[in-house]
Amino acid sequence: MAAKKYTVGVLGATGLVGREIIKTLSERKFPVSRLILLASERSAGTVLSVGKKTLTVQVAEPKIFKGIDFLFSSAGGSVSKRLASHAVDAGCIVIDNTSAFRMEEHVPLVVPEVNAETLRHHKGLIANPNCSTAQLVVVLKPLHDAFGIKRLVVSTYQAVSGAGNKAIEELYMQSEQVLSGQPAIPQVLPYPIAFNVIPFIGEFEANGYTNEEMKMTHEVAKIMGAPIPTTATCVRVPVANGHSESVNIEFERPVTPEQVRQVLANAPLVTLRDDTQLRHFPYPLEVSGQDQVYVGRIRQDVSHPCGINLWVVADNLRKGAALNAVQIAETMIAMGLA
Amino acid sequence: MAAKKYTVGVLGATGLVGREIIKTLSERKFPVSRLILLASERSAGTVLSVGKKTLTVQVAEPKIFKGIDFLFSSAGGSVSKRLASHAVDAGCIVIDNTSAFRMEEHVPLVVPEVNAETLRHHKGLIANPNCSTAQLVVVLKPLHDAFGIKRLVVSTYQAVSGAGNKAIEELYMQSEQVLSGQPAIPQVLPYPIAFNVIPFIGEFEANGYTNEEMKMTHEVAKIMGAPIPTTATCVRVPVANGHSESVNIEFERPVTPEQVRQVLANAPLVTLRDDTQLRHFPYPLEVSGQDQVYVGRIRQDVSHPCGINLWVVADNLRKGAALNAVQIAETMIAMGLA
Repeated sequence: MAAKKYTVGVLGATGLVGREIIKTLSERKFPVSRLILLASERSAGTVLSVGKKTLTVQVAEPKIFKGIDFLFSSAGGSVSKRLASHAVDAGCIVIDNTSAFRMEEHVPLVVPEVNAETLRHHKGLIANPNCSTAQLVVVLKPLHDAFGIKRLVVSTYQAVSGAGNKAIEELYMQSEQVLSGQPAIPQVLPYPIAFNVIPFIGEFEANGYTNEEMKMTHEVAKIMGAPIPTTATCVRVPVANGHSESVNIEFERPVTPEQVRQVLANAPLVTLRDDTQLRHFPYPLEVSGQDQVYVGRIRQDVSHPCGINLWVVADNLRKGAALNAVQIAETMIAMGLA
Repeated sequence: MAAKKYTVGVLGATGLVGREIIKTLSERKFPVSRLILLASERSAGTVLSVGKKTLTVQVAEPKIFKGIDFLFSSAGGSVSKRLASHAVDAGCIVIDNTSAFRMEEHVPLVVPEVNAETLRHHKGLIANPNCSTAQLVVVLKPLHDAFGIKRLVVSTYQAVSGAGNKAIEELYMQSEQVLSGQPAIPQVLPYPIAFNVIPFIGEFEANGYTNEEMKMTHEVAKIMGAPIPTTATCVRVPVANGHSESVNIEFERPVTPEQVRQVLANAPLVTLRDDTQLRHFPYPLEVSGQDQVYVGRIRQDVSHPCGINLWVVADNLRKGAALNAVQIAETMIAMGLA
């Protein structure tokens, strides 16, 4: 019997994540019978190459979803809020990469290596977590299962690709401006990003955190299925692609770096790169373009008997977005849910 | 009576910190009767402009220290180890910016806003702390006095100027190479730094930390005069000048962000820049060239009832090096110690 193939829609097809989803579907030989590219009116009409074919991006409107099996949505929260229910009503399984529905109780928020089982309770809409959370929980889950995590303190070093195509262009343009002695005028990001760091990402909440930071707090707890107290400081750095995270983990009991390495050496999607002799640790230039989540700098916290420090780097467009979304669809097929 | 003037030597005069010391002495109208610029044989003979005069850099050798009142040394640890005792024997007060003597028991390690009193016990040699420690303790001291600090988790975002002139050149050269599509070959720093972050600074110790990280652990305790457990992750970012630090403080008891702001608003050398409405927080491009230590992103730690997060940025060549060194000399004069 031939394996089933699926009609797949990509909403936000011209964005960085949309293009990465199209590429990922192809690379992973996702069983696509028909690919439908969708975007706002502004971007509709764009012609994209997909393998040997070219496809024209169509306007995303409610009536277009009929017949789509999987809809990958990465067109921004307001678009998702407006269109997702139409797609679900039309029978699509919507895998949504925005923050619009992540914390809704009936919406599974899924990283397949961590909580695939929650997919069984889906109501047509599955949320893809925020980039910096996805890569983190891949590392936390096996450690929590082995030792119990009590608390997390995270500081991020996030690439501009998380803010979209225009932010990458701004990084490069500002860098050229600075190198030629001109002033760098920020347009996409709130401060100049070339040769600078920006100590906040997103909008501020009443408690002084940004929504980017609180996403990590809330999403870690939901995906891990455990109320692990988490505090995050999210910082933008002048890196094109690849998010890095300095992670301090307080375990329920003393744990050695060697125990952490043993667990992570066998963890799905995790690659250890932790060689103090060769001074080889994960860094964004090397990790960008890779699927795996890389971990290094694993060491005992000298300030706490149950603490471990480590450093996590992943491609925020892949595990942080497109790869995880496609994995969700693959997992649903494997579980007989689609 | 005319105020006393001093013969001042600058060892390592051609380096980034040496030049910044010369500039700082002039800006702060330090009472210099005669300025003697010293360096290794490689750099001796260099002619530097100092105000309206030009001075020729002389070879640093033991017999040259006679008659110097204050010797600022920033020529690297091995040079300091070789020459410092000769300078002390010749009667100099040596203010050493290297890590060579910082942890020696009889050597005061001084940030004047924090522990000026320890200068009274000096034996001719005073150590200037590491850049990332100096800016941190200026913020920690008033908070520790007010509330008691129990533990610190720090992640740094350190500029390349901390690795010297050649590292700044490397950042700019690699950036040009990447922008023109050429490969960036690291020579000074261990990985490419343009559009990248490097997750370690310095050499590795047996416990998996770098010496840069353990400096913070040890120096915070010594300067604060309190065994505050501190764990640090030190990361190099593609910023020319200005170190940033994401700091998680666990206090002895619950403390509100407003209490922290009130204390820091009155703290010497600290400037609050913490406006979520205007989204104005400290960042290296704005702080580079300033003397003050800037603090923002002050907020309750949502993971711990006694925790506070904050963000500290300072010019690592100024408070992190030259300014603090000159302040030590000024303080010794004011205390009648020189």
